Amino acid sequence: MAKRPHLNELNLSPGKKARLYRLLYQAGPANGTLMILPIDQGLEHGPRDFFDAPESQDPDFEFRVALEGRFSAIACQIGLAEKYYPTYAGKVPLILKLNGKTEIPSDDAPLSPLNATVEDAVRLGADAVGYTLYVGSARQDEDFRQFRQVREDAERYGMPIVVWAYPRGAAVEAKGGKDTIYAVDYAARTAQELGADVIKLNVPKLDPDKLQKAPKVYQRDWTLDQALDQVIRSAGKSLVIFAGGEKSQGESAIQKAEQCMQAGATGLIFGRNVWQRPLHEALSISQSFYQLLSRYA
Amino acid sequence: MAKRPHLNELNLSPGKKARLYRLLYQAGPANGTLMILPIDQGLEHGPRDFFDAPESQDPDFEFRVALEGRFSAIACQIGLAEKYYPTYAGKVPLILKLNGKTEIPSDDAPLSPLNATVEDAVRLGADAVGYTLYVGSARQDEDFRQFRQVREDAERYGMPIVVWAYPRGAAVEAKGGKDTIYAVDYAARTAQELGADVIKLNVPKLDPDKLQKAPKVYQRDWTLDQALDQVIRSAGKSLVIFAGGEKSQGESAIQKAEQCMQAGATGLIFGRNVWQRPLHEALSISQSFYQLLSRYA
Amino acid sequence: MAKRPHLNELNLSPGKKARLYRLLYQAGPANGTLMILPIDQGLEHGPRDFFDAPESQDPDFEFRVALEGRFSAIACQIGLAEKYYPTYAGKVPLILKLNGKTEIPSDDAPLSPLNATVEDAVRLGADAVGYTLYVGSARQDEDFRQFRQVREDAERYGMPIVVWAYPRGAAVEAKGGKDTIYAVDYAARTAQELGADVIKLNVPKLDPDKLQKAPKVYQRDWTLDQALDQVIRSAGKSLVIFAGGEKSQGESAIQKAEQCMQAGATGLIFGRNVWQRPLHEALSISQSFYQLLSRYA
Amino acid sequence: MAKRPHLNELNLSPGKKARLYRLLYQAGPANGTLMILPIDQGLEHGPRDFFDAPESQDPDFEFRVALEGRFSAIACQIGLAEKYYPTYAGKVPLILKLNGKTEIPSDDAPLSPLNATVEDAVRLGADAVGYTLYVGSARQDEDFRQFRQVREDAERYGMPIVVWAYPRGAAVEAKGGKDTIYAVDYAARTAQELGADVIKLNVPKLDPDKLQKAPKVYQRDWTLDQALDQVIRSAGKSLVIFAGGEKSQGESAIQKAEQCMQAGATGLIFGRNVWQRPLHEALSISQSFYQLLSRYA
Amino acid sequence: MAKRPHLNELNLSPGKKARLYRLLYQAGPANGTLMILPIDQGLEHGPRDFFDAPESQDPDFEFRVALEGRFSAIACQIGLAEKYYPTYAGKVPLILKLNGKTEIPSDDAPLSPLNATVEDAVRLGADAVGYTLYVGSARQDEDFRQFRQVREDAERYGMPIVVWAYPRGAAVEAKGGKDTIYAVDYAARTAQELGADVIKLNVPKLDPDKLQKAPKVYQRDWTLDQALDQVIRSAGKSLVIFAGGEKSQGESAIQKAEQCMQAGATGLIFGRNVWQRPLHEALSISQSFYQLLSRYA
Repeated sequence: MAKRPHLNELNLSPGKKARLYRLLYQAGPANGTLMILPIDQGLEHGPRDFFDAPESQDPDFEFRVALEGRFSAIACQIGLAEKYYPTYAGKVPLILKLNGKTEIPSDDAPLSPLNATVEDAVRLGADAVGYTLYVGSARQDEDFRQFRQVREDAERYGMPIVVWAYPRGAAVEAKGGKDTIYAVDYAARTAQELGADVIKLNVPKLDPDKLQKAPKVYQRDWTLDQALDQVIRSAGKSLVIFAGGEKSQGESAIQKAEQCMQAGATGLIFGRNVWQRPLHEALSISQSFYQLLSRYA
Repeated sequence: MAKRPHLNELNLSPGKKARLYRLLYQAGPANGTLMILPIDQGLEHGPRDFFDAPESQDPDFEFRVALEGRFSAIACQIGLAEKYYPTYAGKVPLILKLNGKTEIPSDDAPLSPLNATVEDAVRLGADAVGYTLYVGSARQDEDFRQFRQVREDAERYGMPIVVWAYPRGAAVEAKGGKDTIYAVDYAARTAQELGADVIKLNVPKLDPDKLQKAPKVYQRDWTLDQALDQVIRSAGKSLVIFAGGEKSQGESAIQKAEQCMQAGATGLIFGRNVWQRPLHEALSISQSFYQLLSRYA
Repeated sequence: MAKRPHLNELNLSPGKKARLYRLLYQAGPANGTLMILPIDQGLEHGPRDFFDAPESQDPDFEFRVALEGRFSAIACQIGLAEKYYPTYAGKVPLILKLNGKTEIPSDDAPLSPLNATVEDAVRLGADAVGYTLYVGSARQDEDFRQFRQVREDAERYGMPIVVWAYPRGAAVEAKGGKDTIYAVDYAARTAQELGADVIKLNVPKLDPDKLQKAPKVYQRDWTLDQALDQVIRSAGKSLVIFAGGEKSQGESAIQKAEQCMQAGATGLIFGRNVWQRPLHEALSISQSFYQLLSRYA
Repeated sequence: MAKRPHLNELNLSPGKKARLYRLLYQAGPANGTLMILPIDQGLEHGPRDFFDAPESQDPDFEFRVALEGRFSAIACQIGLAEKYYPTYAGKVPLILKLNGKTEIPSDDAPLSPLNATVEDAVRLGADAVGYTLYVGSARQDEDFRQFRQVREDAERYGMPIVVWAYPRGAAVEAKGGKDTIYAVDYAARTAQELGADVIKLNVPKLDPDKLQKAPKVYQRDWTLDQALDQVIRSAGKSLVIFAGGEKSQGESAIQKAEQCMQAGATGLIFGRNVWQRPLHEALSISQSFYQLLSRYA
Repeated sequence: MAKRPHLNELNLSPGKKARLYRLLYQAGPANGTLMILPIDQGLEHGPRDFFDAPESQDPDFEFRVALEGRFSAIACQIGLAEKYYPTYAGKVPLILKLNGKTEIPSDDAPLSPLNATVEDAVRLGADAVGYTLYVGSARQDEDFRQFRQVREDAERYGMPIVVWAYPRGAAVEAKGGKDTIYAVDYAARTAQELGADVIKLNVPKLDPDKLQKAPKVYQRDWTLDQALDQVIRSAGKSLVIFAGGEKSQGESAIQKAEQCMQAGATGLIFGRNVWQRPLHEALSISQSFYQLLSRYA
């Protein structure tokens, strides 16, 4: 079972260490774990994600959930950060997502363009920046260069980087798709190699058929525990947080979260599973995640 | 019914707030609404828009209409701003449109290139800049990056940004076209996410057939009121102004404007409906819009 | 009939005004008109343009014609300006052409790349810069951005900009070609919108058949006077100069020039019609143009 | 037989000389040879390279092998350098690899994007930077320009450049592939021409059939000694190190290494042949390479 | 017969004049002619050019030939200049070639990327920079822009520019190919227009069949003298040097050189004809060229 790296082992610059310390030990569960609420789906998927839970269309709702649900941080794009975060500044940490796109144009060779900068994050008092990296896209060369600029700025300002490490694009599809253990594993290592401090991964889906076009060593049956262990190891000294994806039944989401944490993850990033509910339900499931993470000091 | 956000709720920097205050409370209806006269069609459509109203070919005509028709501001490209605005400087506020293009080349993957900068706007004494964002275009990544530069400059200089949020391009057409509630709604949210202060939207057209390729949650009958409410909510704390589009009968334009304002819009941006008429008619319809907006303090 | 704008009406910065004043009132006819000799065809068409008039292959020939023919200015690319202009500096004003290309590659989506900068023009003591804008090209977005940089530099240094406004590219061809009143008219307006101080236009060709794919309002018979009036109005407060195109019989060229000036043009830019002749003929036709312009104070 | 160039013959700037001196004479065999351990395969091939030797998935393993195996330097990307190198700083020299990519997208026209800068290398105390140059790729123009920036920065900071000179892309395949003596030879010369200080080459594969589409002068039988001699000469005053490629039997790897050194190579860069083994085996084969190199003072 | 321009007629800046004076009057024949030894073929063609003359593979050989053969200058890329030139600094002038490419990828739309800068040339004490311009390539717009940057830097530092003016690409092939008088003539004029100080041309090949797709005025029989005269005139005040191309019999090369000089060329640039021979032969043919040029004071 992979061991969760400790902040002191990461050889971070003082600025990065100070800010990550805030996220790990002074907010949310405050025990070295991370509990992140993302609200970037309005850009990535469009308003359709809000239809089943009308309250959620107002960004203030998610900020309120982040605060009252005792999250370690809320992650959003610059527009929401500028207009909604000021009311919550100091009360709940901010992860400024620096890039994003709509889902309208083709996803064959995706690239997520920068919409904000590390300087914006510094100005707003954010404690980390977020970056979506499309590993395996035909445009990954542009992506890597764009990320380099972010990494350099983050180094200069002592700002931790959370990488949304997403295998994506036609070549990934040809090798079994974005959810195979192969694809997620490669994405985890790539993010580590390029300099992520925290890596957001989706939980691999265990479909042996899809591995037939993956490299040979991956072509076997995997248990979820094995798969989680593998990708966490591939992230090395980058902390791993797992995403919940679409809204699911509360029980199954919590069970999966438990497995992730036991495998060595540092935390969870659950969005739709939380805010696609009325306030009291959203706070209730937040409470469940909080209690879960509290057991992983 | 969506509530119109108040300037004080927007968490704007002092420069942005001061300039928006001028537009909202010291010009035009001066009651917190916006009444904008755009004259960028000479570039976007070419001189053909002026044929039925020959006076309108001379840009001085539109500046005169803006002044005598008591508009909150006139919006135009740098060329007109340099040569015609100086005569009107101080008398009617200027929104400098920063990008634009001709309609001659293919619109399959549109991108509106920058023709001017925020610095130009500052130098000319403008109170806002305008930016056309083609949401969903295959080149939206370039667009987002270009917009980021504008947003950063606008932040530095305290200059409000009005985003012309236009769903556009082949992928948008494939999902029902630029006028569906789906397309306009996504454009509104995108502009909010990227940091617009004011968002110009076209009024959605309510054709259920066109929604068949839109996401499922949009596939139902919408009343205009519902549609307007939805897109205004998707704009969040970005103020919404609605466009009139092509010249229509005075009555129907005013009726539609009324619905927009009741739905929670902050203002109107009517060009061809105003200046594609002889001066006295143009001033007369301006007067109608002015009176209408005066009722929405 | 369009009125020629007066220098005082253009709201120019002091630097632009001082330099345009030199071109309009202190050189050539010196009565507010412009008489420009262009020698950029060696790049745009290649040496073939010089075969029928061997003297013209030596750039010094054109500089001599510009001086002895009493032109308001000579327009050329950086290479000729660096090596030939110094001999004539102070005696005949220079318009430094900043971009250009050869005619060898396909013209389907043309873009004229920058070969020199406004700074070069300042260093050489030029009184204006020239820029070729391909309106309607599939690459017009790059063109507009490139022009923006030129415009900003020109603003900073107080340097007037002469835009060679050329409709061009596959989409223009599909709508009737580069010589229709529709195409030239749109080009004139576009140059005005982007910030040209002077616009060089080709005289529209009046072929009703070619207008069948143009917007409806253009689809009628035009007299040359009507067409000239229309495009000059579309240029607004940007001064218009008309080109002569290929060498023609002296009489017809002068007759056409007369019509242009009567329609409200500010001047003429005749190259091949002048320098594709032996010296005495070149000076003789220059003299005719000079006399013609002298009547339009 | 090609003579190995001496550090004093290379006309290096003081900074480059000082750092190369450290690599050649103060680390590893310390006799003017180089023994490099690369760990960039996690990015280039993905985690699959670690499956047969699970310890190797943890980057700390390779750093430990580099130290205990007495290597001249370890070469890795910025992510590993930031998080793992600090523990080893001062004990084993670092070559910071500046560019890299995943193997997922098509390799038809490869380009390896910059993930780090020479400034990063300086900040981390590295003694050289590494750069992968894809000679013959359809995108080699971008590559050359990207390399130029690296070379200029390296000159400014006195940082030696190790070029991974790889013939690659569709045009290379059409001429016999990346492993022919023709392809490797051209790559060696190209790296020299562009300014490499050290060139990493793969050992050419001697398949006469594959030379049928190479230039005529290459179309003959080559012995390995002849081929090694040729490519080392093509590198001129750039020092050559040879790669071992995939893991092979210890004996054959050492035998090939011997031939390389006898042909005039300056050193060896063996990764998978070393770290795709348990620690004691990895150290054992390192010891063999160390002894081999010790004989080439 | 075209007259060779004199240095004093070129209106050069002091720095350019001082450096060209060194090349024309203080090195090589030192009588106002130029005798240049290029060694950029290792990059442009690969090591294959060295196979028939093994000594030539070592760049030091060409430097020695340049010195002992009393050349005006040696022209090479940055890699050779850094590692080999220092030994010869002060003894033989250097022309630093700033761009170059391999012949591996397709030549349909060639662009020669910058591998070095004018600043590099200044730092190394070079007396000129070299630039390959592919006239007529579909990418000539990029080329012209890239050249502009070089020209500006060269102006700032007073560094003369030698342009390798090569018609190239699919459109050139479609009009008869790179060696027609039409193609070479256009290339010469283009280089002049863009600001070359010295232009390297290939001697046109006189094949009337190939002119059938050239502009009409070129479609006739040309003698070599006529062709040389024409292209030299098209270069205007840019000095012309002719290339020898592939190795030929000594006699025919010298005879062609004689014709070039009589036509008004300023000098010769012969590479393979010189260094693709053993040292004594290389020096012998250099001596012949030297004597030939000595007669053209």
